[in-house]
Amino acid sequence: MVDCVVIGTGAAGVSAALTLNALKVNFLWIGNKDLSIKIRSAEKIKNFPGLHNVSGEDMKDVFLRQAQSEGIEITDGKVNGVYPTDGGYSILCGKDVYETKTLILATGVEAVKPVSGETEFLGRGVSYCAVCDGFLYKNKKIAVAIESEEELEEVKLLAQYADTVHLICIKKRVECNLDNVIVEDGRLTQIKGDMRVKSVVCGDREINVDGVFILKQAIAADSLVHGLKASGGRIEVDRSGATNLSGIFAAGDCTGRPYQYAKAVGEGNVCAYSVNAYLNSLK
Amino acid sequence: MVDCVVIGTGAAGVSAALTLNALKVNFLWIGNKDLSIKIRSAEKIKNFPGLHNVSGEDMKDVFLRQAQSEGIEITDGKVNGVYPTDGGYSILCGKDVYETKTLILATGVEAVKPVSGETEFLGRGVSYCAVCDGFLYKNKKIAVAIESEEELEEVKLLAQYADTVHLICIKKRVECNLDNVIVEDGRLTQIKGDMRVKSVVCGDREINVDGVFILKQAIAADSLVHGLKASGGRIEVDRSGATNLSGIFAAGDCTGRPYQYAKAVGEGNVCAYSVNAYLNSLK
Repeated sequence: MVDCVVIGTGAAGVSAALTLNALKVNFLWIGNKDLSIKIRSAEKIKNFPGLHNVSGEDMKDVFLRQAQSEGIEITDGKVNGVYPTDGGYSILCGKDVYETKTLILATGVEAVKPVSGETEFLGRGVSYCAVCDGFLYKNKKIAVAIESEEELEEVKLLAQYADTVHLICIKKRVECNLDNVIVEDGRLTQIKGDMRVKSVVCGDREINVDGVFILKQAIAADSLVHGLKASGGRIEVDRSGATNLSGIFAAGDCTGRPYQYAKAVGEGNVCAYSVNAYLNSLK
Repeated sequence: MVDCVVIGTGAAGVSAALTLNALKVNFLWIGNKDLSIKIRSAEKIKNFPGLHNVSGEDMKDVFLRQAQSEGIEITDGKVNGVYPTDGGYSILCGKDVYETKTLILATGVEAVKPVSGETEFLGRGVSYCAVCDGFLYKNKKIAVAIESEEELEEVKLLAQYADTVHLICIKKRVECNLDNVIVEDGRLTQIKGDMRVKSVVCGDREINVDGVFILKQAIAADSLVHGLKASGGRIEVDRSGATNLSGIFAAGDCTGRPYQYAKAVGEGNVCAYSVNAYLNSLK
């Protein structure tokens, strides 16, 4: 069991990791080994103290080098769920499970809202994880919604299990030339069913499926953690970064506006201190 | 009248200024032209995202260059008081008065607690400003408490007015070879009087004086602004940086722990956004 898990490799996650490291807290940092796509995609940042007129790509390089030179490693992976345990939380990450006493959510903010039915059928036909749940759909029909080409590896894995994969592109069209993968036109607008998923609405068509995989870089943090208090998709925190759940803290865009690097970095730092104080209070 | 005044040139002030500038808010930034002494004095900073293993001196250079290249100027001066006016606040800064709609306090945290009697006799014999109040003590006896050699210019000014200056050093001993300046041993521990100041206690001696000047780099923000809600010297703010007073926001060490550059930078950024929203709400 580690003392803390940081989920997210944006600016808030970087700041939390650097400060946890400075405070000598035993922690695990889960996210994208190359940091979050969102950092990298910024064109030009003018108001971040210390890095003037940098591109997101440059900022990513500086942050990554800094973490590496402190010997901080990133566990590459996407978290699919967080479950309370005795004395902490279990973090499901692909097929791995990590046990931790505390958690810092630095999961960013989703540009895309959940689709109608997505939250309702989660665990009843809706999955965020090809690696964990793919085998459930052997010889079945599934829909897979993806954000970018980065998810194609997971699509290929699912295509090995499923009879037919209806591939729905959330943003721009992605090609896939496997025999049993049909790239659909139109957006995913609804997931329908009763006890379980029965169909998806894609553009003006309804397609019968046994399950839906939604593969995105970020999952709304309040979908990840049952009972986490959030409003309008933003996690509610106090000034120490504490959420309504004991031992869970949140930092950065996932706590709301302004969506700014400086704000994220500040909150990541504060959360690291709050985690340290919380761990000391357990002793 | 400007839209915003930022008081303080530490990390929080730098961040607030950069973001106000980016938001095109018309603001004035008051502090030390060479940024706050506290930034400069840090030995090595390991956990500030973007600047790895920098000294305070290096960080100061980077911040200062960044502000300059954005064309942001610092109004060199110390603020002696903040007073409510119609539609905003008057900022007393030496002999100058600035009118503003909003205020960001980024005044840092005082290492030195106020002396017994300091707050009680403020304006009744206790002054923070040699330039504003020196003339009141023509041919009188005064005590002047200073933090460092940086205040010697003000001591010399006071010595031109006063009959005798008892110079009390708050930190290490500072020499002054003017005929009417007596450098006292011992610390300033108490200010006594009834309607007005009558004496100071310095070490084990009581010295009769007509007034006391306390010349420090930072003044506790809750002494500056009457009615500002603070506890233990820390200004109370919500997550937007808002204080209990309309239009006054606070960021950085003056809002409490952790005393960290990243936290200060985050809060300065958030305050700038809050000021912008507040100004828009006035339109």
